[in-house]
This record gives sequence, structure tokens and C-alpha cells, in this order.
Amino acid sequence: MLKKKHQYVVAIVGATGEVGREITEVLEESTFPVSELVFLASERSEGEKIEFRGEGRSVKRLTKTSFAGVDIVFFAAGDLCSVEFAPVAVQSGAVVIDCSNAFRLEPTVPLIVPEVNAHAVAAHAGIIASPSCSAVGLATVIKPIHQVSKIKRIVMTTLQSVSGAGRKAVDELAGQTVALLNFREIKKNAYPHQIAFNCIPQVGAELESGYTSEERDVMNETAKIMEDDSLQVTATAVRVPVFRGLSGSVNIELESKTTANEIRSILSAAAGVVVYDDLKRNIYPMPIDVIGKKEVYIGRIREDETIPNGMNLWFSLDDVRRGAALNMVHIAELLIQ
Amino acid sequence: MLKKKHQYVVAIVGATGEVGREITEVLEESTFPVSELVFLASERSEGEKIEFRGEGRSVKRLTKTSFAGVDIVFFAAGDLCSVEFAPVAVQSGAVVIDCSNAFRLEPTVPLIVPEVNAHAVAAHAGIIASPSCSAVGLATVIKPIHQVSKIKRIVMTTLQSVSGAGRKAVDELAGQTVALLNFREIKKNAYPHQIAFNCIPQVGAELESGYTSEERDVMNETAKIMEDDSLQVTATAVRVPVFRGLSGSVNIELESKTTANEIRSILSAAAGVVVYDDLKRNIYPMPIDVIGKKEVYIGRIREDETIPNGMNLWFSLDDVRRGAALNMVHIAELLIQ
Repeated sequence: MLKKKHQYVVAIVGATGEVGREITEVLEESTFPVSELVFLASERSEGEKIEFRGEGRSVKRLTKTSFAGVDIVFFAAGDLCSVEFAPVAVQSGAVVIDCSNAFRLEPTVPLIVPEVNAHAVAAHAGIIASPSCSAVGLATVIKPIHQVSKIKRIVMTTLQSVSGAGRKAVDELAGQTVALLNFREIKKNAYPHQIAFNCIPQVGAELESGYTSEERDVMNETAKIMEDDSLQVTATAVRVPVFRGLSGSVNIELESKTTANEIRSILSAAAGVVVYDDLKRNIYPMPIDVIGKKEVYIGRIREDETIPNGMNLWFSLDDVRRGAALNMVHIAELLIQ
Repeated sequence: MLKKKHQYVVAIVGATGEVGREITEVLEESTFPVSELVFLASERSEGEKIEFRGEGRSVKRLTKTSFAGVDIVFFAAGDLCSVEFAPVAVQSGAVVIDCSNAFRLEPTVPLIVPEVNAHAVAAHAGIIASPSCSAVGLATVIKPIHQVSKIKRIVMTTLQSVSGAGRKAVDELAGQTVALLNFREIKKNAYPHQIAFNCIPQVGAELESGYTSEERDVMNETAKIMEDDSLQVTATAVRVPVFRGLSGSVNIELESKTTANEIRSILSAAAGVVVYDDLKRNIYPMPIDVIGKKEVYIGRIREDETIPNGMNLWFSLDDVRRGAALNMVHIAELLIQ
């Protein structure tokens, strides 16, 4: 458990990656009481300089002794790294906030979206997980609805930017786009197929069931975050040629009749959500509009008449900031409250 | 009704547009017995040369007297043009094959996907409609399933390329992409928002219900093509930064238990469909792989466990060729059989 202090020693594992850098930015903009920020990464990034609150600091190589004196560690370096080093950090007395999917479904690990299930953070045993960005977006949007009008089933298709796959994927989209516009051959590293001017209906690894890991994540995590095992979610995750921002096309089946206007008014009053919904004036959430935003934007709210209590909606969020870095810092804020 | 002949005089209205040019290409590659191909367009394109079977011909300006002696007219110039000129063509003795949505839901107008409801073409009264490209894709894929295991409800999200919005939109995606990569300001004409590196959850005009015209098209047309009013379809249509190709993420609810393998085997035997489904080997339909193809490609077939008889799947087709031009030429082939 975290001891109350005036200021905390904070470390970021994966400090030079997309999410790691975003955590630094979010902390920079926040009033989080950081006495020292320790940047940790693999050997490859050792010695790189990152600035925080006016001071440049070198990235250190992550080792098993990196966590001495550290109070809070943000893990943003992938599943394998979390599996290996998170228990070490806990052992040395730190609390871990992890955005990999290494521990998300562990019964002893709280899976937290502060707007949705902040109370659950108290039960942690050293590790707290931050959900996949799809689940952060979905849970933030559906929790306020679920509280008023119970949701039975969700069918979701996500359109996910390359930022979710890290720096290499962002460079790949840019590089392939330039190559194609110059009639040159493209290079493929981050994905098995061309992503520029294409859609790839695979995010993450293949699982036995025919689903991908990303699809299973959101299907499994949502019920845990919502604390309702009866909530059914099925998902299709698609990679699209967008640099940043994740969108979800969501069909929900409610237990009782609820109008689109009621949903709008429920969501307008909800934390972490911006209702951005006026099709007549071409207003709806889009990836380019949510970059850097701290809320999940929601629009295209309309009744689905194919079932008695159906609703269609569409949300977008900044997957790196809102879906990961900001959620992790918000979890840290819960810890020190 | 079309009189049997050895060869037919064929006209294309909108000959210089995306679909019009594709119709010419499809006819060129076919053995369709064309004695003369007449290219019609607005004043702006008058005099442009188009080649067909080794002969260049000038585009003529469309007028009310353009259809004298013409047997079959392909209309590919938008709703307003079809509303004004299709009845004139019929009056002058031609049969019209129209890909606008001007007449698709008219009870006297057959709405045809040859692989699905070829028999219905016989009832035409001069005009035959070709469905929206989303409906062509969806109907081609679900008809063989529906025949074996009745489908009750469909939830679909489409990811649609800019080609569906014509040449101007294709130029806009290219232009905006180049501008953004050079840190210049983008120009917007075809869409109300930036399409490069973005997703726009609006295809077509806004309707009172909160749905767009494109969404309503596929929701209404599918039941008509399938000749089953009990079939429920709800849809969300999204524009993505892809030059050509339309994909659909489809969730279906069947009346009785059917396995993913059964669906695969039904579709493998179906006309106009290619099962392209091996996630383990990164094989699934994608826009870049279906360009120029005459089939609808289908993959990511997997059971949806959130309902007793659910199934998720994903299809892609060349919207301009398979979704429009080829479908129209196939309709013409039915007429002369």
C-alpha cells in the first residue's frame, strides 16, 4: 500500500515509447506531487534525455534494482516487461499502474477507469491495471447509461489508429503513405499488410476462438470494469490508416425503453464524456478532433428499431492520452487521495 | 421490355464519372453484344474521348433526345439526373439500369443483385435498380446463409472508401494527404471534414431519424433484395481514408444454431463470394486486395457467444466495380438471356 507523503518518487517504465512520453506530458500538465521522475527503458534508449518540469533527465536502463525508493511505477512497455518487472517493483515497495494486458483479468488486480469504478482501486495488492483503450472508451460511455437503464448486450466495431501499436507503426503509416504517393514500393514491419490507404481487420494476435487478443480484451475487460458479469460484449477490431484516435461504432440493447434524447441527457451529465452530437450540422466525434482531449466524445446517438430497446452510437477518444496515459495518471491520483 | 437482338445499342449516362468509366471497362472485358456504345454526360464533359474495344468515341451532352435508338441505358450520374432522364429513356423504348437511389424502393422497380434475386428482374417496367454498394456486399454474403439458416437481425458497420463519393473525393483524399505530409493547409470540398488520416462517421445526407441516407439505404434495400420483410438490419456507415473498396463488419443473429465452419462451407459453395478466412495466417479481406475483383470477399467468420445463435463476419468488395459497374452489367446480361 502507498504511504501518504507530500511528494512521491515516480518512475515510468517504457519512458521513450508513445504512452511513456504521454505520461510525462500528462504529469507535466498536472499538479501531481512528484518529487522525482525516473525514466526507465530498455538498453537501446539508455542515455536519451527527456524533459520534465524544466529539467532534463537521462533515461536509465531498467533492471531489477531500478525501483529502490520509488513509490509509484507506471508500466508502459508491453506484456512481457510487465510480467517480468512489475512483481519486482511491488516487492521493493512500489505500487504499479500497468497498461499492458498482463494482469488485467487477474482477480486480485483492480482494473480501473476512475470515472467508472474508482472505488475498486482500494482493494489492490500492489498492481493496478489500466484497461485497453477500447475498454476505457466503451466503459466511460456506457457506465452512466447502465446505471439508469440496464444494458444487456453490446455489439461493437472499433476503428483503431496506428498509435495503439507504438512509434514503429506511426512511422510505418507515414512512410508507406509517402512511398505510395511516389509510386515506390512500401516497407512492412509493424503490420503484416499495408496499412496506408487500407483497413486491416486484425488488431493484436490471433486467438484459438477466431477472435484477436484486442477483441477478447474489450469483451472480457468491460464486464470487469462495469462490475456486471451479465453484460455481454462482442467486438470486431479494425486497424485504420489514422495516426491517433480510436473510434467505436456501438450497438447496445437495453433492458427497458430509453429514447435517444434520454441517452443524450444522461451522457451530458456524466464525468469524462462530451456529447458531440448534431448530425444536421455535421457534428460527431472524429479521431482528428479528440487528439489531446481528456474526455471521450460521443455522438450519432439514435434509436435502433430492429429490437425493442436498441440504440446505436459512436465514440472517439485519444487512445494514447485518454485511453492510456491520462487514465493511468488518474489512477495514481486516486491512490494519493 | 427489351426486344431480343444479336447486338444492342448501349448508352452510359455519367460516362466520365467513376462508375461510368468502370462500366465501360467491364463491358470491354465482357462478351456483351454491344453494337454501339454511347457516352453521355453533362455539358462540362462534352467532347471528351473514351476508348471502347479499340475505338475512341466522343462524350455527348445528355439531352432528352439522347436515347433515340438506344436499347439499354446505364445511369450512373446521381439521383437528380436519374429522376429527370430515366423516365425519358424508358419513354423512348430503352430499358434503364440505374445505380442511383432514385427508384430503389419503388414497388414497381426491381432491385437486383443477380447472385441473389435474378428472377425478380423479369417484373420490370422499364427501370431496374442496382443497390447501394453496401447492400450489394451484404446481400451477396447473407443470402446463401439465409437460405440454409434464417437470419433474424443484422448489425453492420461499414468502412467506406472515398471512391463511393466520386472522382472529386478521390482527388481530395490524395490532395489532403500530400498537404498534411508537407505541413500545408488542407482544402475541403467533397466532405465537410478532413478525410486524410481521419474517419468521418457520416456517409450521405442526414435524415430526420438521426440516420444518414447511406445507412437507411442499406437498412431498407437489404430486405427488398432478400425478399424477406422480417429481416432486420441496423447500420452505421463510416468514411475512411481509403481510395477504393468497401468493408462491412457484420454481426448476425440466426434463428437456429449454426457453427462458423458451417457458415464457411455454405459460403464456399456460393456464387459471387470468396471465403478468405485464416486469421492465423493473417488472411482476411481488405480493401487493397479486392480492387478489380468481381467477388465479395468474406472472412473473420466466428461465433458470437453473447446470443444463442450469433455470428460475426467481415467482408470487403470493390465498391465501384463489384458494388456498382459489374452488378449493372450483370443485370444487363440477365435482360438479354
